[in-house]
Amino acid sequence: MSDLQHTRVGIVGLGLMGGSLALALRGHVPYLLGVDRQPATRQAALRDGIVDEAVEALTPDAPPVDLLVLATPVRAILDTLTRLPALRPDGCAVLDLGSTKRAVVAAMSALPERFPAIGGHPMCGKETAGLAAAAADLYRGQTFVLCPLPDAPPAAEQLARQLIAAIGARPVVLDAARHDATVAAVSHLPYLLAGALMRGAADERLWAISASGFRDTARLAGSDPRMMLDILLTNREAVLDALREAETELAAVRDALADGDEAALAEWLSAAQVAYAAYRRFKSGEHLLPGAQT
Amino acid sequence: MSDLQHTRVGIVGLGLMGGSLALALRGHVPYLLGVDRQPATRQAALRDGIVDEAVEALTPDAPPVDLLVLATPVRAILDTLTRLPALRPDGCAVLDLGSTKRAVVAAMSALPERFPAIGGHPMCGKETAGLAAAAADLYRGQTFVLCPLPDAPPAAEQLARQLIAAIGARPVVLDAARHDATVAAVSHLPYLLAGALMRGAADERLWAISASGFRDTARLAGSDPRMMLDILLTNREAVLDALREAETELAAVRDALADGDEAALAEWLSAAQVAYAAYRRFKSGEHLLPGAQT
Repeated sequence: MSDLQHTRVGIVGLGLMGGSLALALRGHVPYLLGVDRQPATRQAALRDGIVDEAVEALTPDAPPVDLLVLATPVRAILDTLTRLPALRPDGCAVLDLGSTKRAVVAAMSALPERFPAIGGHPMCGKETAGLAAAAADLYRGQTFVLCPLPDAPPAAEQLARQLIAAIGARPVVLDAARHDATVAAVSHLPYLLAGALMRGAADERLWAISASGFRDTARLAGSDPRMMLDILLTNREAVLDALREAETELAAVRDALADGDEAALAEWLSAAQVAYAAYRRFKSGEHLLPGAQT
Repeated sequence: MSDLQHTRVGIVGLGLMGGSLALALRGHVPYLLGVDRQPATRQAALRDGIVDEAVEALTPDAPPVDLLVLATPVRAILDTLTRLPALRPDGCAVLDLGSTKRAVVAAMSALPERFPAIGGHPMCGKETAGLAAAAADLYRGQTFVLCPLPDAPPAAEQLARQLIAAIGARPVVLDAARHDATVAAVSHLPYLLAGALMRGAADERLWAISASGFRDTARLAGSDPRMMLDILLTNREAVLDALREAETELAAVRDALADGDEAALAEWLSAAQVAYAAYRRFKSGEHLLPGAQT
């Protein structure tokens, strides 16, 4: 496997994640191919010099690349992986940026040997989608999860680590199943809680009185619903587990409040604050960890 | 009723809200009395020149004031209001900063005529409690809800409006019951959702992979549990209504996901995003409203 500085890179999906990756890779790779269905996105990417060439779809005729980064919603990633042997007969290394990893790693494991592949999930984003929201520093200092394929040779991981270093992120290797259970709890559940809040508060008269607490708790409800649909459908069991746990917690505090059980209510509130304080201490110390970038 | 510039002000509770009010009122009033149970808080307030005098409790011997601002948790406000005729035999104007208003306004309505009173709720805060977190600009540009007593003379409202203008906030008059239902939906429910999230994610292995989405959705879980206990217990019915609505939303998305009902799931997610986008548009236009301060 060649060094990143000699690696021609193709990015499928020039949205927030793919576009930011292209911006962050400028100067680190000799060639960038953008693949995006939207003509306006391709035009903008070429006009702004974000990619060297742009094509509508990955076809056998599209320019050759050494590394293909799949930056579309998860089910489009799965579809591309299935068709990859026909689309790229000569093979190439493959990395994805999908938000769930079990289904992606399973599909990667089914690829022929000429496709050294690894699952990836950068733990960053914005609630604004699209190339217009892309930023060269989106990945800087952020955790970038890698999910290697079982029994895979190290080539794909070595190249992915070079890419992660080039964009200033921090690699964390995680088993795909463990990754999916974790993001269900810390990403997909918060999204659903924000959505439930926003759906129940779809009323201007409420917004006039709302302040920063509502704003922050509701923020994830602005996420791209198409991306979230794929995430939820490809991480169904883990999300259902996390949802059931949250519903149990809400039922407990509702019962305590309905019963006027002040002791139970105080315990519920205090445990939440204690956990939050421990989380904040953990995060404030995280920049001291080996390998962390600030 | 005298002008604010001739009004001696007492603030009961020198925490985040009371302390910030004292800082914001400097130069606008001739005298500030601080009332706080904690010796360390009184010492800090005197040392930093935040108040002119500080006492442990409101007693008949404490220095006279023209306006008393109650800035403690709600049930302590209710207790003070009950004892006020004995504590301040000569009477004074009364404003509170409590987070729920129905019980407070009812207690104010029971006061003798020499206590012109009005309920108040500044829609700002931090998840950090205490005088150390107080800031002179906490109220600047923020909504300050006023809940006048039914059939009350205008004296208390006039003085409260002067105070709100002095600290740079924006007054909004609201019926107490309407206020309580609104804050249940936009403040108390988000707090409980954040608490449920944090209680279910009290695990360092999850925090290592968490990013800004988790951080923002969990933030309110750091709120002072003693303050929140009072809020929930004095706004029980409205909070239970808001909780039940959120639980219904979560059950709906869980059913759609469990059934693999992609159309229902897509509708749920899209409606949340549409509502969020409308909320953001509303908020970005709010500084254009008459009376808004930026």
